[in-house]
Amino acid sequence: MINWKNLDQLSSFEALKACKPVCLKSAMAGENGAKRVKAYTLPMAAGLSFNYAAKAVDEEILEKLCALAKEAQLSDKYRALLGGEIVNTGEKRRVLHQLTRGQQDADVIVDGVNKREFYLEQLKKIEAFSSAVHAGSVANENGEKFTTVVQIGIGGSDLGPRALYLALENWAKTEGTFKMEAKFISNVDPDDAVSVLRSTDLSHALFIIVSKSGTTLETLTNEAFVKDALVKAGLNPSKHMLAVTSETSPLAKSSDYLAAFFMDDFIGGRYSSSSAVGGAVLSLAFGADVFKRFLDGAASEDCLAKEPDPMKNPDMLDALIGVYERNVLGWPTTAVLPYSQALSRFPAHLQQLDMESNGKHVNRFGEKIAYPTGPIIFGEPGTNGQHSFYQLLHQGTDVVPLQFVGFRQSQNGTDVDIQGSTSQTKLGANLAAQIVAFAYGKDDENPNKTFEGNRPSSVIVGDRLTPEALGALLSHFENKVMFQGFCWNINSFDQEGVQLGKVLAKRVLAHDTDGALKEYSELLGI
Amino acid sequence: MINWKNLDQLSSFEALKACKPVCLKSAMAGENGAKRVKAYTLPMAAGLSFNYAAKAVDEEILEKLCALAKEAQLSDKYRALLGGEIVNTGEKRRVLHQLTRGQQDADVIVDGVNKREFYLEQLKKIEAFSSAVHAGSVANENGEKFTTVVQIGIGGSDLGPRALYLALENWAKTEGTFKMEAKFISNVDPDDAVSVLRSTDLSHALFIIVSKSGTTLETLTNEAFVKDALVKAGLNPSKHMLAVTSETSPLAKSSDYLAAFFMDDFIGGRYSSSSAVGGAVLSLAFGADVFKRFLDGAASEDCLAKEPDPMKNPDMLDALIGVYERNVLGWPTTAVLPYSQALSRFPAHLQQLDMESNGKHVNRFGEKIAYPTGPIIFGEPGTNGQHSFYQLLHQGTDVVPLQFVGFRQSQNGTDVDIQGSTSQTKLGANLAAQIVAFAYGKDDENPNKTFEGNRPSSVIVGDRLTPEALGALLSHFENKVMFQGFCWNINSFDQEGVQLGKVLAKRVLAHDTDGALKEYSELLGI
Repeated sequence: MINWKNLDQLSSFEALKACKPVCLKSAMAGENGAKRVKAYTLPMAAGLSFNYAAKAVDEEILEKLCALAKEAQLSDKYRALLGGEIVNTGEKRRVLHQLTRGQQDADVIVDGVNKREFYLEQLKKIEAFSSAVHAGSVANENGEKFTTVVQIGIGGSDLGPRALYLALENWAKTEGTFKMEAKFISNVDPDDAVSVLRSTDLSHALFIIVSKSGTTLETLTNEAFVKDALVKAGLNPSKHMLAVTSETSPLAKSSDYLAAFFMDDFIGGRYSSSSAVGGAVLSLAFGADVFKRFLDGAASEDCLAKEPDPMKNPDMLDALIGVYERNVLGWPTTAVLPYSQALSRFPAHLQQLDMESNGKHVNRFGEKIAYPTGPIIFGEPGTNGQHSFYQLLHQGTDVVPLQFVGFRQSQNGTDVDIQGSTSQTKLGANLAAQIVAFAYGKDDENPNKTFEGNRPSSVIVGDRLTPEALGALLSHFENKVMFQGFCWNINSFDQEGVQLGKVLAKRVLAHDTDGALKEYSELLGI
Repeated sequence: MINWKNLDQLSSFEALKACKPVCLKSAMAGENGAKRVKAYTLPMAAGLSFNYAAKAVDEEILEKLCALAKEAQLSDKYRALLGGEIVNTGEKRRVLHQLTRGQQDADVIVDGVNKREFYLEQLKKIEAFSSAVHAGSVANENGEKFTTVVQIGIGGSDLGPRALYLALENWAKTEGTFKMEAKFISNVDPDDAVSVLRSTDLSHALFIIVSKSGTTLETLTNEAFVKDALVKAGLNPSKHMLAVTSETSPLAKSSDYLAAFFMDDFIGGRYSSSSAVGGAVLSLAFGADVFKRFLDGAASEDCLAKEPDPMKNPDMLDALIGVYERNVLGWPTTAVLPYSQALSRFPAHLQQLDMESNGKHVNRFGEKIAYPTGPIIFGEPGTNGQHSFYQLLHQGTDVVPLQFVGFRQSQNGTDVDIQGSTSQTKLGANLAAQIVAFAYGKDDENPNKTFEGNRPSSVIVGDRLTPEALGALLSHFENKVMFQGFCWNINSFDQEGVQLGKVLAKRVLAHDTDGALKEYSELLGI
């Protein structure tokens, strides 16, 4: 039987608060530091590892975190979610994105439909369609192959698929599996669509309209924008457009589309990258086999996350350390810093994943809670960030916990040796150096050159950013966010906070305004 | 005579702390709210306006902020900076980026060189060179025109120029002033350079190497990477490369470059967009006339910033409200949210500008200070962000002050009418709606649908994102950061916090490691 208790109702949380904080600077010094780096590490899926040696934890704190995991029943709650329990209490929905990876153990039957089979069926439809596009049997009006795919979607229909496309684009080019360029239109700002369309050969482009409800304002507007452009170019929009939507949406049965692929209400937008939302565009861009390798990586990490002992479960441990940093040490932000240019937009995706999931002020029963929940997430790739905001991270007045990611090899393999080392070696050297610089700091007689240290970080390391590694990485963060939501006793799967703005925007468009809203509308020329 | 005092030594700061906080929800209600929107606004340069009606201030707090501006001598300090005083105390340097706009009143003579004339001379050289490239009189080995320019730089040599290029790319295409595509290589990760080179026609590409010192590791490595690729393609690198550097750098007199344009030690990297660092790439991409229009916008805003009364000085007032939010209300982050897809990377540039400038723990005399300094800056364009992290902004447990930017017209003019309104109108409607939703909130019997409101924002509004408006916008934020640095009595112009990482990275590359650093190096395969 699962108890859904607030964090501050757990005795293990009280015990955690009573622990003596770790002085990271001391812990990371000398041979002890070396021992920590070797010991404080957990294997992840796809050959990745999660190293938390530079986090402000010790044996006592880890023990209390394990007790917290047990008392909060993190593992039972994850199992319940996998089993199809209605974990999204606000919207009264199951949460089944892990099942889109196709390999979870439990069958979930909803209204007579086996959901695993449903998601697999969509994947097969996508595979057949993308193969036909690559082979040229699905082609444009003149029988010519499509060369570009443009995803039209916003939020979860944009950030995840875009981040994943960028993450694998150069890998696919190196491996010879690159099929079609992908582009993305998201913003209702007409400059977004115009900019993408200007650089796109419309006659050889496929457009994917992605909206679960089929009613997303931005996406429908951009669809109309693109249709208008296609018609003006003398093309037939229905020969250039696909839909990814739910079976009950207005887009599902429309003859406006070459094909439609389905998701459902159990796949939240920000968790939809491994569903048809990511599957269609990524299979078209790289081939369905690459997308399946990505799913395999995610599924393996999902399996690891079932382990009840946090000391064997990197997703759960990462989550628990984050709760400790947020609710005991009181740090309100977290930076995600991938040392991989291919992951340039991965922090933007995690920003949505984390902040939209856990930026909540009520628990799953709708009761106001008395402790901080989800942190503010931001980040840019290293080494770029080193020449930007790292100044504040090293010497600012606030501590920002850091989440590094790095790989031993580049995606391309191409490299040059400058001053005795390759670029990839320099990249890794900088990452190693930063972890130690943040943790250990440096004294100096000039206070302006003093680094206080004690700035914690973890690092996920892999051999190379492959589809499997990317899947494991995505799943790690999805599961981390889920476990943190369980700790905070919130619903990580709804987003009521986005509604008010939509309602007021409709009032502005209907000129049904008064007071400040009327004035701001006028200021903006409406 | 200027007194450089810490914020907590100012009696006006004590008075500010004693003010009763504003309930924004009440202040923004009904006709009072409408009056605030009309009254709490200041003109900026280039037709922009700064509206702070939805900030948590009232007449009393504004009065105290004015007293703080006076006691902290903000205007005198800015005048001293413009006059060439050594405001960058750590590095003992002048701070002259405003002078690159070419129109400041004071002459600054250093070692017999009139600095305004020096910067203007570089601008003229850039103009002549870019005109010659556009005309084809500077051309490739076969006498063919260059079609692409690739900037190789990192930090300030990348983020600002890249953000500005993206901000004006579609404007220039619409206006017919677009000359050449620009691309950027920054990261030492070889996947960055490979990815850009893969999509670039090397024989028609110009590369600009940007490094003030001529010693930046990433930039020299990427230069070598590109040279290698040019040679392999049978091209002569010296016919394809320019340098932007200081006159004393190893790059300055090299015969490896078609041309070299100069900046100097008085232009900090993050403030260098209006120097040759931005000037070369933007003049090549859009023509020197467009770059000069951008400089004019910045210069006009710089002039406005000289006004000593904060109630007539939008840059100073914005800075003061930020200090109030940071040091009295205790909010550690700020989100920058441009409702303009063209400004997609402007928040990333401001992140460097602000966090590298003001993420400091010692005052300008090197003494440790006892109050928070620069906030954490993050942001993405609206409406995209609405479908991402706005959930936390609306309903999370932390208050994040917001800085909106919006325009009445799109850059392109192209638009479609869907459901009775254009995309641009929908964009503006969403912005107006969000400001009011954040400030005013909404009660609901379901706590999960409750919005507490009292979440403050300001908005900068303009007619259209033109080069002048972009210049004014950039200058506004540069000056805001400068004034905040003055309030905190810190040096906003050095960056000692980036040094330790560099030193340790060199040790890793030299295999001169022990303890944790050695283990992390091994973990990363070095």
